[in-house]
Amino acid sequence: MTSADDELYGLDALPYGVFDPGQGPRVGVRFGPGVVDLAALSAAERSPLVELFDRPTLDALLAAGRTTWSRARSKVQEWLSTTPGEHGHHLADVDLHQPFTVADYVDFYSSRVHAENLSQIFRPGQPPLQPNWLSLPVGYHGRAGTIVPSGTPVVRPNGQRAGGGAGPSEFGPTRKLDLEVELGFVVGRGSTLGTPLPGGHAREHIFGVVLVDDWSARDIQAFEYVPLGPMLGKSFATSIGHWVLPIEALDAARIPPPPREQALHPYLTGWHDMGLDIDFEVRLNGHLISAPRYRDVYWTPEQQLAHLTVNGASLRSGDLFASGTVSSIGNPGSLIELTLDGRRQLALPDGRQRTYLEDGDEVVITATAPGPGAARIGLGEVRGTIHPSSIEQGDS
Amino acid sequence: MTSADDELYGLDALPYGVFDPGQGPRVGVRFGPGVVDLAALSAAERSPLVELFDRPTLDALLAAGRTTWSRARSKVQEWLSTTPGEHGHHLADVDLHQPFTVADYVDFYSSRVHAENLSQIFRPGQPPLQPNWLSLPVGYHGRAGTIVPSGTPVVRPNGQRAGGGAGPSEFGPTRKLDLEVELGFVVGRGSTLGTPLPGGHAREHIFGVVLVDDWSARDIQAFEYVPLGPMLGKSFATSIGHWVLPIEALDAARIPPPPREQALHPYLTGWHDMGLDIDFEVRLNGHLISAPRYRDVYWTPEQQLAHLTVNGASLRSGDLFASGTVSSIGNPGSLIELTLDGRRQLALPDGRQRTYLEDGDEVVITATAPGPGAARIGLGEVRGTIHPSSIEQGDS
Repeated sequence: MTSADDELYGLDALPYGVFDPGQGPRVGVRFGPGVVDLAALSAAERSPLVELFDRPTLDALLAAGRTTWSRARSKVQEWLSTTPGEHGHHLADVDLHQPFTVADYVDFYSSRVHAENLSQIFRPGQPPLQPNWLSLPVGYHGRAGTIVPSGTPVVRPNGQRAGGGAGPSEFGPTRKLDLEVELGFVVGRGSTLGTPLPGGHAREHIFGVVLVDDWSARDIQAFEYVPLGPMLGKSFATSIGHWVLPIEALDAARIPPPPREQALHPYLTGWHDMGLDIDFEVRLNGHLISAPRYRDVYWTPEQQLAHLTVNGASLRSGDLFASGTVSSIGNPGSLIELTLDGRRQLALPDGRQRTYLEDGDEVVITATAPGPGAARIGLGEVRGTIHPSSIEQGDS
Repeated sequence: MTSADDELYGLDALPYGVFDPGQGPRVGVRFGPGVVDLAALSAAERSPLVELFDRPTLDALLAAGRTTWSRARSKVQEWLSTTPGEHGHHLADVDLHQPFTVADYVDFYSSRVHAENLSQIFRPGQPPLQPNWLSLPVGYHGRAGTIVPSGTPVVRPNGQRAGGGAGPSEFGPTRKLDLEVELGFVVGRGSTLGTPLPGGHAREHIFGVVLVDDWSARDIQAFEYVPLGPMLGKSFATSIGHWVLPIEALDAARIPPPPREQALHPYLTGWHDMGLDIDFEVRLNGHLISAPRYRDVYWTPEQQLAHLTVNGASLRSGDLFASGTVSSIGNPGSLIELTLDGRRQLALPDGRQRTYLEDGDEVVITATAPGPGAARIGLGEVRGTIHPSSIEQGDS
């Protein structure tokens, strides 16, 4: 870790995570070059917060609700201001764990640039957006059970893709393994079945944000997705960062979202403060390949939560809902966009080229946002390396 | 309960559930006219099974694996053969609970008759099946957090539907609230990320079956589902039965599935014993409106599990995967099929008519299968009554 990185993780950031210093997993915060053991620190301070921090996940903290979230954050800031050196561990000395138990996982499709880029690739000459896109935040449920923490190897998935012409499908390892840069929102407090969330209540329910890489096998997805949406093309792995940044830490990053192009139904209106000024960087084998900006995302997390619950569906603590691929003009959040579905090679500075991901490739996504002072704050990273398929090539 | 019903729940059935006789939830089996308290019975028998039965869910039993499932079933059969009257409660005297904690919920689309019926309604003159349908079991992830036990009121969902012509969408309570008759498979033992299940291993992972009514708002679904599949049109509620029938109880119901029409990739072949001879009955306000047969479902649970994991996705104990609407020719499993999307009225014996569900309507789905002897065995029921939307009519 560089000292520049350290500056991203001062008192204004303090993302929570779960780490094991060798005596079992517990809650910590990333702070400067390391992680502070909040279980030990809160115990030493004789704080009742130890009940939330001496746990193997963030689940109890998530369920505690906004008042407790704010109090906990203030306390941690106070402790670290007065005794910054205690109960710290270098990141290299600890194991980092999945931070929370994911309940339901919903992936939205909220970046207009991304949706339009895909239209251009697959439906050139057609209208750039489907008829529903400007009316509601399109999304789908993904597989919660295959959400894995940053660093988990991503095994190239096998599956069916369209065969040549009218022939049968082909089976084998995906030839179009892609990354997707996303921001995930972690639900803290749940809601009641049958009761849509009133507008503007999102902040009572969103605990924080986590980086997401929604790995995608484009050829598998293309064959399977009509008419019920993505399934095996996405379900093999979705990586999340180790660090969950409390939504409070992003107060200085709030900006208006892009202008609404179409009048919206009332349940999607009335609050527009959660556009977020977050800058991503995507590195492939160490080379910066794109820098999408979350500020370009059309649908806000408030709108997504209002939409998710408008039919009476309930939220649970631990629900994760993600933005969908974040793309900016010239800086898309996926290889399918960067390479026009493989029709264009992406030249890397080391002289190599890529269309889609190859075995051994490492993808690292990082992000930062403005903090309350001059320094930016960090959202951690999400990292994954591609491992070969269990089969060498297609078996048919 | 009639005595005919009682006969469906003899020693050859013994579906597990969770009930509360007033002293807290625990595991029981449905037996004749009531439920037997397995927590109390196993304690009285000084059996170590009490560790699995004195629990508020079936979760521990599910995770225990096939050897324990078989031993537990044999023990319960033995106990109930010798002391059938003890530790029993009338169903009217107990509360029935959600039987297990749902991990991920996947809904397939495995009935060819259903898929072809929908094609006929929405794409007349087009090929009756999408190009992928005969190659793989199409499915999608649903919302696990809104799976509710039989009897939970179903509140009519609000949402967006297409507006007239090219205008904006409309918002309001769904006008096309439907039922879907489905069979759900409950995963007991999970599997490892990155390791597809070998063919034929499904039985080691499937604990049992449960009835499912996958309520659907057809107008909301029709507007939202391109390109990522169903979302709010399904996520407001999915009802499951209180009773989970162990897969062992269906040994006598195993039959070959319908003939395969197209050569399949090897991972989907090699076992064909889990076609199941299960007959459903759907009642609307007490009137039998359809009697679909599971034997007509094209894709088997073995194939569904092999497909779910072929990309390396893992299973978790508590995963629920459902058949999708079960339709037979002349006996479809949904109102959209029975009424051709509302173009045809369904006449009920009481002189009333229906297209889609109206507020106050009660839907009850039951099912039976051949047992090892002359008597059939019961799969319980799944029941739901439609409650009005929280808003009177569209707000725009």
